[in-house]
Amino acid sequence: MEEVKIFKIGGKVIDQEPLLIEFLQDFVNIPGKKILVHGGGKIASEFSQRMGIEAKMVNGRRVTDEQTLEIVTMVYGGLLNKKIVAALQKIDCNALGLTGADLNVIKAHRRPANPVDYGLVGEVDEVNDAILGVLLDQNVVPVMAPLTHDKQGQMFNTNADTIASGVAKALAKKYTVNLFYCFEKKGVLMDAENDDSVINLIKESEFAHLCEQKIVNEGMIPKLENAFACLNEGVGRVYICHFSAIKNLTGIDQEATLISR
Amino acid sequence: MEEVKIFKIGGKVIDQEPLLIEFLQDFVNIPGKKILVHGGGKIASEFSQRMGIEAKMVNGRRVTDEQTLEIVTMVYGGLLNKKIVAALQKIDCNALGLTGADLNVIKAHRRPANPVDYGLVGEVDEVNDAILGVLLDQNVVPVMAPLTHDKQGQMFNTNADTIASGVAKALAKKYTVNLFYCFEKKGVLMDAENDDSVINLIKESEFAHLCEQKIVNEGMIPKLENAFACLNEGVGRVYICHFSAIKNLTGIDQEATLISR
Repeated sequence: MEEVKIFKIGGKVIDQEPLLIEFLQDFVNIPGKKILVHGGGKIASEFSQRMGIEAKMVNGRRVTDEQTLEIVTMVYGGLLNKKIVAALQKIDCNALGLTGADLNVIKAHRRPANPVDYGLVGEVDEVNDAILGVLLDQNVVPVMAPLTHDKQGQMFNTNADTIASGVAKALAKKYTVNLFYCFEKKGVLMDAENDDSVINLIKESEFAHLCEQKIVNEGMIPKLENAFACLNEGVGRVYICHFSAIKNLTGIDQEATLISR
Repeated sequence: MEEVKIFKIGGKVIDQEPLLIEFLQDFVNIPGKKILVHGGGKIASEFSQRMGIEAKMVNGRRVTDEQTLEIVTMVYGGLLNKKIVAALQKIDCNALGLTGADLNVIKAHRRPANPVDYGLVGEVDEVNDAILGVLLDQNVVPVMAPLTHDKQGQMFNTNADTIASGVAKALAKKYTVNLFYCFEKKGVLMDAENDDSVINLIKESEFAHLCEQKIVNEGMIPKLENAFACLNEGVGRVYICHFSAIKNLTGIDQEATLISR
């Protein structure tokens, strides 16, 4: 089967333009079929503040009310997505920005309000792998924003990790899919204070133990859960890596955390 | 040659959601290959105000500085474009939102600063008719925002009429293209105060005279110039019509202004 590589970026690499530009150049240098999924970074919160929209928080997490959905649709689907697309086009990469609504590429439902109502947040139901296949065959590089829709006219704010894993699982039916979660750490760290203490391999059988020891915690827990779900649905390899690690994919096993069944 | 219909919407039909939804239903009911180009409406100015960005004006027209470009990229490329795409997907129309940067679909250059510098405003150089053809063959309906890029990483604010005519001219090489400029008037009016005084046919030979008499003035002048340029480059028919006139395209000659060579 032909390979498709999916790269998800979030955090500093989105907020700091020079890092983003460097990452995009590395991304373009990687041969073959590929997809970029981007998170939102801090820009949406900055815009909300400038517009005087007060953040509603539950359990330390922002609730996506109507106004917040407008902001993220503008910032993720407009400003950020087009910044990435235009930068990729500059370096001769035929990028196409997509939200889940475009081409009905990701259909979702609203996350249940129970136990906590986070508002207009989507959970992925269905990825249109057929149309993604058509685009990839045209050498198009999809650039996916963290937004989905319900095909009833409602957009949703949607976690970019979930989008990346949803797309990976859907494409795994037809392609060998490798997934790279790229951020500002070198991978899952044994010691949070030591950036060089990367765990090079995490097996599913070790996951519960790593959680108990709090080596894996907070945002890393759903990321790893997503990764195991991918592997159990046919995705080839899942890496958690520094965004600069994609410069040398042949050496990535020594530079990142490989998630394994 | 196969037909492609291009519809451009602007003004009230964008600003008033019930009108937009009604228009989109009519649009979906029209069979065959089609493209929707949307303008910006008033929403971008409202957001600028809410964010405390002062409009720089020259000759009564807004200058697109860096901040304004951010706003229009968010509002046109994000909020508005995705609202339209999600609404079309709801009624089973496979819409794909595009700015000029996506798929490098419209390459532009910055409008010369002489005699007046309007800032980051694009003039269309090249439309990627090949990729539009691929999309149309997949029954995809492109929904184009009034934004272009220079393929050097710079986005531009770009007049939606110009985008519609640029796309029409490019597709005329391969398709019979008919272009519909839809707004809140029934067409070009003989008497601006009388909404029913539509001129059903304007020939290029009459244009100068209509301008002298101020029957055609202000924003209508470039619209008609665009229309004549289209006709001279192979576009089939160009109509200026009320957005509800597309309900009955067979009767449109009695309900709109047909622009003719």
